[in-house]
Amino acid sequence: MHPSESRSQHFHFKILKETGSGRLGELATPHGIIQTPAFIFCATKAAIKGLLPQQIQDANTQIILANTYHLMLQPGADTVKRLGGLQKMTGWNGPMLTDSGGFQIFSLGHGGVANEIKGTQNSARPKTLLNIFEDGATFKSYIDGSVHHLTPEKSIEVQVKLGADLIVVLDECTPFHVDKSYTQRSMEMSHRWALRSLAAFDALHASERQRLYGIIQGGIYPDLRKISAEFVNEQDFFGHAVGGCLGASKEQMDDVVSLTLSLLAKDRPVHLLGIGGIRDIFHGVPQGIDTFDCVHPTRLARHGGALVPTFVRAALGTAKDKEHINLKNSQFQHDDSPIDPSCGCQTCSSLSRGYIHHLIKAKELSALQALTVHNMYTMNRVLEDIRAGINQNNFEKARDYWVST
Amino acid sequence: MHPSESRSQHFHFKILKETGSGRLGELATPHGIIQTPAFIFCATKAAIKGLLPQQIQDANTQIILANTYHLMLQPGADTVKRLGGLQKMTGWNGPMLTDSGGFQIFSLGHGGVANEIKGTQNSARPKTLLNIFEDGATFKSYIDGSVHHLTPEKSIEVQVKLGADLIVVLDECTPFHVDKSYTQRSMEMSHRWALRSLAAFDALHASERQRLYGIIQGGIYPDLRKISAEFVNEQDFFGHAVGGCLGASKEQMDDVVSLTLSLLAKDRPVHLLGIGGIRDIFHGVPQGIDTFDCVHPTRLARHGGALVPTFVRAALGTAKDKEHINLKNSQFQHDDSPIDPSCGCQTCSSLSRGYIHHLIKAKELSALQALTVHNMYTMNRVLEDIRAGINQNNFEKARDYWVST
Repeated sequence: MHPSESRSQHFHFKILKETGSGRLGELATPHGIIQTPAFIFCATKAAIKGLLPQQIQDANTQIILANTYHLMLQPGADTVKRLGGLQKMTGWNGPMLTDSGGFQIFSLGHGGVANEIKGTQNSARPKTLLNIFEDGATFKSYIDGSVHHLTPEKSIEVQVKLGADLIVVLDECTPFHVDKSYTQRSMEMSHRWALRSLAAFDALHASERQRLYGIIQGGIYPDLRKISAEFVNEQDFFGHAVGGCLGASKEQMDDVVSLTLSLLAKDRPVHLLGIGGIRDIFHGVPQGIDTFDCVHPTRLARHGGALVPTFVRAALGTAKDKEHINLKNSQFQHDDSPIDPSCGCQTCSSLSRGYIHHLIKAKELSALQALTVHNMYTMNRVLEDIRAGINQNNFEKARDYWVST
Repeated sequence: MHPSESRSQHFHFKILKETGSGRLGELATPHGIIQTPAFIFCATKAAIKGLLPQQIQDANTQIILANTYHLMLQPGADTVKRLGGLQKMTGWNGPMLTDSGGFQIFSLGHGGVANEIKGTQNSARPKTLLNIFEDGATFKSYIDGSVHHLTPEKSIEVQVKLGADLIVVLDECTPFHVDKSYTQRSMEMSHRWALRSLAAFDALHASERQRLYGIIQGGIYPDLRKISAEFVNEQDFFGHAVGGCLGASKEQMDDVVSLTLSLLAKDRPVHLLGIGGIRDIFHGVPQGIDTFDCVHPTRLARHGGALVPTFVRAALGTAKDKEHINLKNSQFQHDDSPIDPSCGCQTCSSLSRGYIHHLIKAKELSALQALTVHNMYTMNRVLEDIRAGINQNNFEKARDYWVST
């Protein structure tokens, strides 16, 4: 057997159990096996902000992602390759995913469209997207304003150099306000881009150590979602990512996700892009989502927020729509309890809410580190509880532990 | 036996070996035993910037210090006490020292006098020291400009609440430019402050869980140093700290330190305040210094600097007067070696120079964390090598490994 063939054996996706509350799976990569449903943490520039690899492992993390957009600009794909590829370079050495670079180009480019794609509010940001051609997209670097052109082929080429286990095709991310006709034309172009991505992936023999995800487009339009799902089902993708606009409300998002999932091939892992609230995950899993990613747990930490179970929030009088407590709050000044008495993370094992409150007030970097460790460990615990809930047929118990009703 | 007596048994200082290259000692505290010579790392606001307690332990750290000045202003001594005292609050749970608060009041107060006290250059800073009375010093808070008054008694009271194992008397830190007559008057006042500190320490029964250090004053004047040494030798201090101006040059510092050490009681541990270059430590140890403290290793890390042995600097063409390499430097962009191939720290075990260079360029917080872990581990290694060098009578070998000649 050729070594590359033996290597490609390292990839598989096995469904272990299917229930009305979601499915249990095993996603194997050459860098390790991921038990699904799983959460993918964002190491945007090839680093989880403020953590070292040992801490990421100690928090029971299964897989992290890095952003092609940021890394192609700094330090550049060739540099990452010279430093051994993402897994070795970061010292993480576990499973990794890279996105296509598209989301950042289009979301930074349209100015605050990240929120619009997710259906939330708009915000003011510099418009760095210069043009979208059939060939690809032209944009200005967020670092120095230099002009770059990203094509489907270029995105694959960069992602092959970066070397993540799971990689994603380039698509156009449309903002919420576009109409059905724009959505359809964009979807059709994204499908053509997907075919070009598959061809580039094959031409680079990337399957020797990577697997490619396709993206389902179609916005909020059921007939377009159907066309897009049929398209990706027919292509030789390892997995599918739910992309495009998911609607303006949580309800609409649920509908779009639910419809999309019903149309997708059942034997491939399904990733929901950029969704990471605990409530959202408990909604997504029963619909068949296998993996989630979001900056939420790590970004929240940098703003003083700690994810905690229902009973902790209830005891502290936190509003029911919140999934976290904020350690900046003066109510924690003299509180010598850990953030979450039921948590086994390094932060909760040794530090009190009062001390973390002090660190935030004193602008000490250790605060964000302590909270990032906690939120990462907690998000992994949520997914562990979800998997146990599916396995033991008590998914609702897990949901009640984490989500207020 | 009364429990407090049993507790106080936890303190001792034993000299294990004395040589011309320095002495080996064992300094026991209720929170652990320190092998001397030892380095004390600065956790100014009760945190080593960017690290969590587990990482401080993993870097083989023996003892850390926190600053009374910062903590009395934020979060306040009572809050620290309510959160269990410094050792418990920080999650470090190992030996700790607090300074008196004097150095910051006088150094921030005079405007850049920290450098002047150390004999280096001046710099511009707001003058927050309002007045020095026989009673104590009045100063403005660096946080909100509120006015505070620190007396010898208040400093002890605050340090007792903070709860560090080793605490220090309040003294006036004179800048370099003052003349002999000012130095003498200041020394005499500091001696009176020392007696008041001892009385306050006794009145609070602090010896049940803490030990007090006296400070030797006298600036660069041998006759004053003699008076001050005789004074502290006669008082019931557990240890001595070399304070006051040490001169304008490295040579003068060596002379002042050497003279001072020759005058001090030999059975007490001697601490050299605020000196932490590797070369300085190799100078201080043979003169009889047992402990050192300085922000240098951790601050250097935050500026991209990594302490490395002679052979690493030589291989990279670093200037001979440098004790570190700077990972910001573009020469490291594609360098996949660890910072120091002879180092066993977590950073060198998993991350390359090239990756750390990328993290610095991308302004990722993990860079300062990676470098802080490395510099802390390295400084502990330097002191370990020094102790081994004294023990095995090959101190020069250890020096050559770390200091270029």
